[in-house]
Amino acid sequence: MKTFLAGLTAATIALAGAATAQDTPFASQIKARQGIMEYRALQLGVLGGMAKGEVEYNAEAAQKAADNLMATVTLDASMLWPKGSDNSANPATAALPKIWEEGSDIGEKAKALGEAATAMKAAAGTGLDGLKSAMGPVGGACGGCHKAFRLSTN
Amino acid sequence: MKTFLAGLTAATIALAGAATAQDTPFASQIKARQGIMEYRALQLGVLGGMAKGEVEYNAEAAQKAADNLMATVTLDASMLWPKGSDNSANPATAALPKIWEEGSDIGEKAKALGEAATAMKAAAGTGLDGLKSAMGPVGGACGGCHKAFRLSTN
Repeated sequence: MKTFLAGLTAATIALAGAATAQDTPFASQIKARQGIMEYRALQLGVLGGMAKGEVEYNAEAAQKAADNLMATVTLDASMLWPKGSDNSANPATAALPKIWEEGSDIGEKAKALGEAATAMKAAAGTGLDGLKSAMGPVGGACGGCHKAFRLSTN
Repeated sequence: MKTFLAGLTAATIALAGAATAQDTPFASQIKARQGIMEYRALQLGVLGGMAKGEVEYNAEAAQKAADNLMATVTLDASMLWPKGSDNSANPATAALPKIWEEGSDIGEKAKALGEAATAMKAAAGTGLDGLKSAMGPVGGACGGCHKAFRLSTN
Protein backbone atom coordinates (compact mmCIF):
# COMPACT_ATOMS: atom_id res chain seq x y z
CA MET A 1 0.00 0.00 0.00
CA LYS A 2 2.87 2.32 0.82
CA THR A 3 4.40 1.66 -2.58
CA PHE A 4 1.04 2.22 -4.22
CA LEU A 5 0.59 5.57 -2.49
CA ALA A 6 4.15 6.62 -3.25
CA GLY A 7 3.50 5.70 -6.86
CA LEU A 8 0.32 7.70 -6.94
CA THR A 9 2.08 10.69 -5.42
CA ALA A 10 4.78 10.44 -8.06
CA ALA A 11 2.14 10.08 -10.77
CA THR A 12 0.33 13.12 -9.38
CA ILE A 13 3.55 15.12 -9.54
CA ALA A 14 4.16 13.83 -13.05
CA LEU A 15 0.66 14.84 -14.07
CA ALA A 16 0.74 18.24 -12.38
CA GLY A 17 1.04 20.03 -15.71
CA ALA A 18 -1.85 18.07 -17.16
CA ALA A 19 -4.00 18.82 -14.14
CA THR A 20 -3.41 22.55 -14.52
CA ALA A 21 -4.31 22.27 -18.18
CA GLN A 22 -7.65 20.79 -17.15
CA ASP A 23 -8.83 24.29 -16.26
CA THR A 24 -10.11 24.81 -19.80
CA PRO A 25 -12.53 22.41 -21.55
CA PHE A 26 -10.95 19.39 -23.18
CA ALA A 27 -7.49 20.82 -22.52
CA SER A 28 -5.81 17.46 -21.98
CA GLN A 29 -7.35 15.89 -25.09
CA ILE A 30 -6.39 18.91 -27.19
CA LYS A 31 -2.83 18.89 -25.87
CA ALA A 32 -2.53 15.16 -26.51
CA ARG A 33 -3.74 15.32 -30.12
CA GLN A 34 -1.64 18.39 -30.85
CA GLY A 35 1.26 16.51 -29.34
CA ILE A 36 0.83 13.62 -31.75
CA MET A 37 0.75 16.16 -34.59
CA GLU A 38 4.07 17.56 -33.34
CA TYR A 39 5.60 14.10 -33.38
CA ARG A 40 4.30 13.62 -36.93
CA ALA A 41 5.69 17.00 -37.94
CA LEU A 42 9.15 15.90 -36.85
CA GLN A 43 8.93 12.78 -39.03
CA LEU A 44 7.45 14.73 -41.96
CA GLY A 45 10.30 17.21 -41.61
CA VAL A 46 12.78 14.39 -42.27
CA LEU A 47 10.81 13.02 -45.23
CA GLY A 48 9.98 16.46 -46.65
CA GLY A 49 13.56 17.66 -46.31
CA MET A 50 14.77 14.75 -48.42
CA ALA A 51 11.91 15.09 -50.93
CA LYS A 52 12.75 18.75 -51.46
CA GLY A 53 16.48 18.04 -51.74
CA GLU A 54 17.31 20.10 -48.65
CA VAL A 55 18.72 17.04 -46.94
CA GLU A 56 20.61 14.22 -48.65
CA TYR A 57 18.53 11.08 -49.07
CA ASN A 58 19.32 8.43 -46.49
CA ALA A 59 17.38 5.20 -46.79
CA GLU A 60 17.66 4.27 -43.13
CA ALA A 61 16.57 7.68 -41.83
CA ALA A 62 13.75 7.87 -44.38
CA GLN A 63 12.49 4.42 -43.42
CA LYS A 64 12.61 5.25 -39.74
CA ALA A 65 10.63 8.47 -40.25
CA ALA A 66 8.07 6.62 -42.37
CA ASP A 67 7.77 3.84 -39.79
CA ASN A 68 7.28 6.45 -37.07
CA LEU A 69 4.65 8.29 -39.09
CA MET A 70 2.82 4.99 -39.56
CA ALA A 71 3.06 4.27 -35.83
CA THR A 72 1.22 7.50 -35.07
CA VAL A 73 -1.46 6.64 -37.59
CA THR A 74 -2.14 3.33 -35.87
CA LEU A 75 -1.91 4.87 -32.39
CA ASP A 76 -5.34 4.83 -30.75
CA ALA A 77 -6.98 8.22 -31.19
CA SER A 78 -10.34 7.36 -29.69
CA MET A 79 -9.78 9.55 -26.63
CA LEU A 80 -8.34 12.50 -28.51
CA TRP A 81 -11.38 13.91 -30.29
CA PRO A 82 -14.36 13.99 -27.91
CA LYS A 83 -17.43 15.67 -29.38
CA GLY A 84 -17.45 19.32 -28.42
CA SER A 85 -13.67 19.69 -28.23
CA ASP A 86 -13.64 22.29 -30.98
CA ASN A 87 -12.43 25.86 -31.14
CA SER A 88 -15.72 27.27 -29.90
CA ALA A 89 -15.16 25.41 -26.61
CA ASN A 90 -11.44 26.13 -26.31
CA PRO A 91 -9.41 28.60 -28.37
CA ALA A 92 -6.30 26.45 -27.84
CA THR A 93 -7.56 24.30 -30.71
CA ALA A 94 -8.21 25.26 -34.32
CA ALA A 95 -10.46 22.22 -34.82
CA LEU A 96 -13.77 23.28 -36.36
CA PRO A 97 -17.11 22.01 -35.02
CA LYS A 98 -17.97 20.56 -38.43
CA ILE A 99 -15.57 17.68 -37.74
CA TRP A 100 -18.36 16.22 -35.61
CA GLU A 101 -21.33 17.31 -37.70
CA GLU A 102 -23.53 14.83 -39.49
CA GLY A 103 -22.25 14.11 -42.98
CA SER A 104 -18.67 14.99 -41.98
CA ASP A 105 -16.15 13.06 -44.07
CA ILE A 106 -13.56 13.08 -41.30
CA GLY A 107 -13.48 9.27 -41.47
CA GLU A 108 -12.56 9.41 -45.16
CA LYS A 109 -9.84 11.94 -44.39
CA ALA A 110 -8.39 9.67 -41.72
CA LYS A 111 -8.52 6.75 -44.12
CA ALA A 112 -6.65 8.77 -46.75
CA LEU A 113 -3.89 9.49 -44.25
CA GLY A 114 -3.70 5.82 -43.33
CA GLU A 115 -3.34 4.81 -46.98
CA ALA A 116 -0.77 7.51 -47.71
CA ALA A 117 1.28 6.58 -44.63
CA THR A 118 1.14 2.90 -45.58
CA ALA A 119 2.42 3.73 -49.07
CA MET A 120 5.15 5.93 -47.60
CA LYS A 121 6.24 3.14 -45.25
CA ALA A 122 6.55 0.82 -48.27
CA ALA A 123 8.41 3.36 -50.40
CA ALA A 124 10.57 5.53 -48.16
CA GLY A 125 13.51 3.15 -47.86
CA THR A 126 13.58 2.10 -51.52
CA GLY A 127 15.06 5.28 -52.93
CA LEU A 128 14.52 9.01 -53.35
CA ASP A 129 12.11 8.57 -56.27
CA GLY A 130 9.90 6.29 -54.22
CA LEU A 131 9.92 8.70 -51.32
CA LYS A 132 9.01 11.61 -53.61
CA SER A 133 6.14 9.67 -55.17
CA ALA A 134 4.75 8.81 -51.74
CA MET A 135 5.14 12.37 -50.46
CA GLY A 136 2.34 13.80 -52.59
CA PRO A 137 -0.44 11.70 -51.10
CA VAL A 138 0.92 12.20 -47.57
CA GLY A 139 0.98 15.96 -47.98
CA GLY A 140 -2.41 15.81 -49.65
CA ALA A 141 -3.88 13.85 -46.76
CA CYS A 142 -2.47 16.29 -44.17
CA GLY A 143 -3.59 19.33 -46.12
CA GLY A 144 -6.95 17.85 -47.07
CA CYS A 145 -7.95 17.48 -43.45
CA HIS A 146 -6.40 20.75 -42.30
CA LYS A 147 -8.02 22.77 -45.07
CA ALA A 148 -11.44 21.29 -44.44
CA PHE A 149 -11.46 21.10 -40.66
CA ARG A 150 -9.01 23.56 -39.24
CA LEU A 151 -9.71 27.22 -38.55
CA SER A 152 -7.93 29.24 -41.18
CA THR A 153 -5.33 31.60 -39.74
CA ASN A 154 -5.11 33.64 -42.95
CA MET B 1 4.97 15.91 -60.64
CA LYS B 2 1.98 18.18 -60.26
CA THR B 3 0.58 15.89 -57.57
CA PHE B 4 3.97 15.79 -55.89
CA LEU B 5 4.23 19.58 -55.79
CA ALA B 6 0.64 19.96 -54.62
CA GLY B 7 1.42 17.43 -51.91
CA LEU B 8 4.51 19.29 -50.84
CA THR B 9 2.58 22.55 -50.71
CA ALA B 10 -0.07 20.93 -48.57
CA ALA B 11 2.63 19.42 -46.36
CA THR B 12 4.26 22.82 -46.06
CA ILE B 13 0.95 24.32 -44.98
CA ALA B 14 0.48 21.45 -42.57
CA LEU B 15 3.94 22.06 -41.16
CA ALA B 16 3.61 25.83 -40.94
CA GLY B 17 3.31 25.74 -37.16
CA ALA B 18 6.30 23.46 -36.85
CA ALA B 19 8.35 25.69 -39.15
CA THR B 20 7.65 28.71 -36.97
CA ALA B 21 8.63 26.73 -33.92
CA GLN B 22 12.02 26.08 -35.53
CA ASP B 23 13.05 29.61 -34.60
CA THR B 24 14.39 28.40 -31.26
CA PRO B 25 16.94 25.59 -30.86
CA PHE B 26 15.52 22.06 -30.94
CA ALA B 27 11.98 23.46 -30.85
CA SER B 28 10.45 20.73 -33.00
CA GLN B 29 12.11 17.91 -31.05
CA ILE B 30 11.04 19.47 -27.75
CA LYS B 31 7.47 19.93 -28.94
CA ALA B 32 7.34 16.36 -30.22
CA ARG B 33 8.61 14.80 -26.99
CA GLN B 34 6.36 17.01 -24.86
CA GLY B 35 3.53 15.97 -27.15
CA ILE B 36 4.13 12.30 -26.45
CA MET B 37 4.11 13.14 -22.73
CA GLU B 38 0.71 14.82 -23.17
CA TYR B 39 -0.65 11.71 -24.85
CA ARG B 40 0.72 9.62 -21.98
CA ALA B 41 -0.83 12.01 -19.45
CA LEU B 42 -4.25 11.41 -20.98
CA GLN B 43 -3.86 7.65 -20.60
CA LEU B 44 -2.43 7.99 -17.08
CA GLY B 45 -5.39 10.18 -16.21
CA VAL B 46 -7.73 7.29 -17.04
CA LEU B 47 -5.68 4.74 -15.11
CA GLY B 48 -4.99 7.08 -12.17
CA GLY B 49 -8.63 8.12 -11.95
CA MET B 50 -9.69 4.49 -11.52
CA ALA B 51 -6.83 3.69 -9.14
CA LYS B 52 -7.81 6.58 -6.90
CA GLY B 53 -11.50 5.67 -7.05
CA GLU B 54 -12.47 8.93 -8.74
CA VAL B 55 -13.75 7.03 -11.76
CA GLU B 56 -15.47 3.66 -11.65
CA TYR B 57 -13.25 0.80 -12.79
CA ASN B 58 -13.95 -0.26 -16.35
CA ALA B 59 -11.86 -3.14 -17.67
CA GLU B 60 -12.13 -2.16 -21.31
CA ALA B 61 -11.22 1.49 -20.76
CA ALA B 62 -8.39 0.53 -18.41
CA GLN B 63 -6.97 -1.94 -20.90
CA LYS B 64 -7.17 0.58 -23.72
CA ALA B 65 -5.35 3.22 -21.67
CA ALA B 66 -2.68 0.68 -20.70
CA ASP B 67 -2.27 -0.45 -24.31
CA ASN B 68 -1.94 3.17 -25.39
CA LEU B 69 0.63 3.90 -22.70
CA MET B 70 2.62 0.88 -23.87
CA ALA B 71 2.36 2.07 -27.49
CA THR B 72 4.05 5.35 -26.54
CA VAL B 73 6.79 3.48 -24.72
CA THR B 74 7.61 1.47 -27.85
CA LEU B 75 7.28 4.50 -30.14
CA ASP B 76 10.67 5.41 -31.55
CA ALA B 77 12.17 8.24 -29.48
CA SER B 78 15.56 8.38 -31.19
CA MET B 79 14.85 11.76 -32.78
CA LEU B 80 13.31 13.33 -29.70
CA TRP B 81 16.28 13.85 -27.42
CA PRO B 82 19.24 15.22 -29.41
CA LYS B 83 22.25 16.10 -27.27
CA GLY B 84 22.08 19.75 -26.33
CA SER B 85 18.28 19.99 -26.35
CA ASP B 86 18.18 20.91 -22.69
CA ASN B 87 16.80 23.88 -20.82
CA SER B 88 20.00 25.86 -21.17
CA ALA B 89 19.49 25.84 -24.95
CA ASN B 90 15.74 26.43 -24.91
CA PRO B 91 13.62 27.48 -21.93
CA ALA B 92 10.61 25.72 -23.49
CA THR B 93 12.00 22.50 -22.03
CA ALA B 94 12.64 21.60 -18.40
CA ALA B 95 15.03 18.82 -19.41
CA LEU B 96 18.29 19.13 -17.51
CA PRO B 97 21.68 18.83 -19.25
CA LYS B 98 22.62 15.94 -16.98
CA ILE B 99 20.37 13.66 -19.03
CA TRP B 100 23.19 13.57 -21.58
CA GLU B 101 26.13 13.63 -19.16
CA GLU B 102 28.47 10.70 -18.77
CA GLY B 103 27.25 8.32 -16.12
CA SER B 104 23.64 9.38 -16.58
CA ASP B 105 21.24 6.58 -15.76
CA ILE B 106 18.60 7.82 -18.19
CA GLY B 107 18.70 4.42 -19.91
CA GLU B 108 17.84 2.71 -16.62
CA LYS B 109 14.97 5.18 -16.10
CA ALA B 110 13.60 4.42 -19.56
CA LYS B 111 13.91 0.71 -18.89
CA ALA B 112 11.97 1.10 -15.63
CA LEU B 113 9.15 2.84 -17.49
CA GLY B 114 9.11 0.06 -20.10
CA GLU B 115 8.86 -2.61 -17.41
CA ALA B 116 6.18 -0.73 -15.50
CA ALA B 117 4.12 -0.14 -18.66
CA THR B 118 4.44 -3.80 -19.63
CA ALA B 119 3.18 -4.84 -16.19
CA MET B 120 0.33 -2.33 -16.43
CA LYS B 121 -0.65 -3.66 -19.86
CA ALA B 122 -0.81 -7.16 -18.38
CA ALA B 123 -2.79 -6.10 -15.30
CA ALA B 124 -5.07 -3.20 -16.21
CA GLY B 125 -7.91 -5.26 -17.68
CA THR B 126 -7.85 -7.97 -15.02
CA GLY B 127 -9.48 -5.96 -12.24
CA LEU B 128 -9.10 -2.91 -10.03
CA ASP B 129 -6.64 -4.61 -7.69
CA GLY B 130 -4.36 -5.49 -10.57
CA LEU B 131 -4.53 -1.96 -11.90
CA LYS B 132 -3.73 -0.51 -8.46
CA SER B 133 -0.75 -2.83 -8.02
CA ALA B 134 0.63 -1.83 -11.40
CA MET B 135 0.08 1.89 -10.78
CA GLY B 136 2.82 2.23 -8.18
CA PRO B 137 5.69 1.24 -10.47
CA VAL B 138 4.26 3.34 -13.33
CA GLY B 139 4.04 6.43 -11.13
CA GLY B 140 7.44 5.63 -9.70
CA ALA B 141 8.98 5.40 -13.17
CA CYS B 142 7.42 8.72 -14.25
CA GLY B 143 8.41 10.47 -11.06
CA GLY B 144 11.86 8.88 -10.90
CA CYS B 145 12.83 10.36 -14.23
CA HIS B 146 11.12 13.70 -13.66
CA LYS B 147 12.67 14.18 -10.23
CA ALA B 148 16.16 13.35 -11.46
CA PHE B 149 16.16 15.03 -14.84
CA ARG B 150 13.57 17.77 -14.92
CA LEU B 151 14.11 21.33 -13.73
CA SER B 152 12.24 21.73 -10.46
CA THR B 153 9.52 24.34 -10.63
CA ASN B 154 9.25 24.57 -6.85
